[in-house]
Amino acid sequence: MNIEVCYTPNSYSLFHKPDSVVVVIDVLRATSAITTAFYNGVLKMIPVATVEEALEYKNNGFMVAAERNGEIVEGFDLGNSPFGYMNSKVKGKTIAITTTNGTQAIEAAKIADRVIIGSFLNLDSVIDYLKTEGKDVLFLCAGWKNKFNLEDTLYAGAVAEKLIYNYGFKTVCDSTLAALDLYKLAKHDLVSYLANSSHRNRLTKLDLERDIKYCLTPNQCPVVPVLSGKFLVKG
Amino acid sequence: MNIEVCYTPNSYSLFHKPDSVVVVIDVLRATSAITTAFYNGVLKMIPVATVEEALEYKNNGFMVAAERNGEIVEGFDLGNSPFGYMNSKVKGKTIAITTTNGTQAIEAAKIADRVIIGSFLNLDSVIDYLKTEGKDVLFLCAGWKNKFNLEDTLYAGAVAEKLIYNYGFKTVCDSTLAALDLYKLAKHDLVSYLANSSHRNRLTKLDLERDIKYCLTPNQCPVVPVLSGKFLVKG
Repeated sequence: MNIEVCYTPNSYSLFHKPDSVVVVIDVLRATSAITTAFYNGVLKMIPVATVEEALEYKNNGFMVAAERNGEIVEGFDLGNSPFGYMNSKVKGKTIAITTTNGTQAIEAAKIADRVIIGSFLNLDSVIDYLKTEGKDVLFLCAGWKNKFNLEDTLYAGAVAEKLIYNYGFKTVCDSTLAALDLYKLAKHDLVSYLANSSHRNRLTKLDLERDIKYCLTPNQCPVVPVLSGKFLVKG
Repeated sequence: MNIEVCYTPNSYSLFHKPDSVVVVIDVLRATSAITTAFYNGVLKMIPVATVEEALEYKNNGFMVAAERNGEIVEGFDLGNSPFGYMNSKVKGKTIAITTTNGTQAIEAAKIADRVIIGSFLNLDSVIDYLKTEGKDVLFLCAGWKNKFNLEDTLYAGAVAEKLIYNYGFKTVCDSTLAALDLYKLAKHDLVSYLANSSHRNRLTKLDLERDIKYCLTPNQCPVVPVLSGKFLVKG
């Protein structure tokens, strides 16, 4: 069972192997929001790449989330703040969602046999899932507009560390080795480690410190969203 | 003066700013070979993307280097082993060169105003050059077939560390922060740190341990190759 990490959605095709389980990661905040949504009883989610598609779902009566550059797109009810999904109104609903980076990563990976959603919020659940599947794993970081970001890389390192040291997974991939070493440096205080990171600063300017702390706190939502056709469902 | 690091040639366009000095890095081994070549008296080099172009230069009487997947392409005299250039035959010559990754990175960056060649062999010379220029810096890692690699990232971290701590450069870029932290972990023994890296293992299989140790030993060739039109020349 081999592990690779792909740092940006635009490089996915270089890493694609149909049999791998792809873990899509957008810690700040799309995959954290999606994990939170399922933990709070959302039935299905439909990730879409563009605001136009999201609007179409809205016009067809769906609950729809749309975020660009950290903010809710005008005319939509939800963005990618996890706190928006801690609400009884979402229970049993199907929600379409489009975000700056996270849903682009899901879009890139959808040709894989198995795509799951990873965030610190479901860290141990994802590890259990991957251990049980026993297949090769590809971590696909959403990054920021196809540039590398730290928080997604740290999450890949966190999961890879457990899979390698406890469950016999292996890696021969430099981006995985880097993720493991960066996580080792960061793991005792993720929030402080990310103090200078570019996206954290972007969100801090938007007054989203509470979101950041929540998204970096492991195992608050023990659920694994899985892509099934065009839907995300509870795995 | 801002610093960014682009991990792979296929992402160069996301980072392109015409005014930045681009430092192309392919530590194992193209930019190490190029640095060594100029230190040993080569007059000019012509980086080309394809073996076909290299062959054309050969047919026109040029000395030509061609490497793919770590080995000299059949029919050519030189590859990207630096030791091939420690030879009085290269003195005063113009040499065309094509390699798996390094010359692809030069190709991607050639739209920038200023492109220079970086390797551990000319570490302090590159730092001096960038300090004197006083412009924004973009490190363009050649990687391996458009995947991240560790050795190029460590070199970016080595130069960035000096520029930031001694000469007032700044960064707000996550890939630079990662490079700085990885270099901090590796700098006391680069050879051991890279023991598990993918490209080092690729080269070890080809019995190139001597090349690896040479390429990771700083400041053996105090010269900065600079791209000028289609030629690399001594800066």
